[in-house]
Amino acid sequence: MISKNEVKYIQSLSHKKNRDAEGVFIAETPKLVNELLQSSVRIKKIYATKDWQPQGSNNVVTEEIDEAALQRISQLETPNKVLAVAEKKKLPSLQLNSHFTLVLDGIQDPGNMGTIVRIADWFGITQIVAAKDTADCYNPKAVQSSMGSIARVHVWYDEPAPILANAQVPVFGALLQGKSVYEIQYQQEGILVIGNESKGIREQLLPFIQQAVTIPRTGAAESLNAAVATGILLSHILKQ
Amino acid sequence: MISKNEVKYIQSLSHKKNRDAEGVFIAETPKLVNELLQSSVRIKKIYATKDWQPQGSNNVVTEEIDEAALQRISQLETPNKVLAVAEKKKLPSLQLNSHFTLVLDGIQDPGNMGTIVRIADWFGITQIVAAKDTADCYNPKAVQSSMGSIARVHVWYDEPAPILANAQVPVFGALLQGKSVYEIQYQQEGILVIGNESKGIREQLLPFIQQAVTIPRTGAAESLNAAVATGILLSHILKQ
Repeated sequence: MISKNEVKYIQSLSHKKNRDAEGVFIAETPKLVNELLQSSVRIKKIYATKDWQPQGSNNVVTEEIDEAALQRISQLETPNKVLAVAEKKKLPSLQLNSHFTLVLDGIQDPGNMGTIVRIADWFGITQIVAAKDTADCYNPKAVQSSMGSIARVHVWYDEPAPILANAQVPVFGALLQGKSVYEIQYQQEGILVIGNESKGIREQLLPFIQQAVTIPRTGAAESLNAAVATGILLSHILKQ
Repeated sequence: MISKNEVKYIQSLSHKKNRDAEGVFIAETPKLVNELLQSSVRIKKIYATKDWQPQGSNNVVTEEIDEAALQRISQLETPNKVLAVAEKKKLPSLQLNSHFTLVLDGIQDPGNMGTIVRIADWFGITQIVAAKDTADCYNPKAVQSSMGSIARVHVWYDEPAPILANAQVPVFGALLQGKSVYEIQYQQEGILVIGNESKGIREQLLPFIQQAVTIPRTGAAESLNAAVATGILLSHILKQ
């Protein structure tokens, strides 16, 4: 039986300041919790309904709860069997050389944030630097749309300007008036800066962009979704 | 002053069966309503707060409402000045020859659906065939994420199998074990089939796929978001 205080505690983790203070986040659905169980992320406690089956063995404290209790602690519209409280990862030091790094300059939507983490993971990128006003990668919606990739990709929330200013690797920026990304050669190391969904890259960062890159448009849409654009740009820049 | 019946009518349009019966859909936010005003979509009525400014002139009946009324009729978490009731477009006949066409085999998420419509519009694709269990492109969330592209892209809800069986153009399918999309030559005409978010392309359609295509993965994520994958695949297949 889950206590009232425990319910309150889990509900409080929908707010960033509480996640930061506690150093934890929540993850839901069998698929995601199983992915985290197989990763280096430390899970503190699992709350699951009777019908949840973990994949493989684990020694995480698991409390059986009923649907009504799951409904109370879940952040999902349709709760799905299991919720885990997990520890945020410790961040190593950022290594720009011999890595390809994403810089997110104020992505606002948590769904986009999680989707970008998943794209990074697909293309083998393990480093994301996010301006401090970027959506929290541990926001429940971001965690869900990252589909477990949050376990493998590191996200530093930091001021991008000094990092870009001191970078010894090529710095690309997603901009509307740039070189076609179809003409960019494979980059083993480098940085790609992605701007805010509506405002793009902040003016203060523009002097550090060495090469503006653009996805050629043949139709009429004014723009592409930020996560879609990130995926397209990376697929061309990292194409070997 | 908006009547109770009008409020009920607009609220009823959040359900597909009512949109189908009435042949209309709703669109919100100044950006989107302005885009529709400049398109061939016929807007039946606009509801807007005092501070809304249409771009350019139009002769659409516009009713001024207060914030509280907008809140009642809006489908958005944060209503934004204006809501329009617009007529669904009449569909021309599908022309597979000399066109590139997307086939969506059961995309479930309305946000993904709208994002794919926007991607199609970016790459100059005006034809989407969607299996009947695909999310409705006139779902309010789909309309919002299409960002106005719904005005330019036609979506037919139909059974894909006979269409693919009779196609005289190359048929590509997004599959995990396919040829690298990086090796596909530019296609002036053709079809790309995108499957459901979790189940992929239905078995019944597989015999009609002439070329399975895959986005090479260098990292560890199990999959990509369906809209992101669509964007990446199109950017390579339609690269001239």
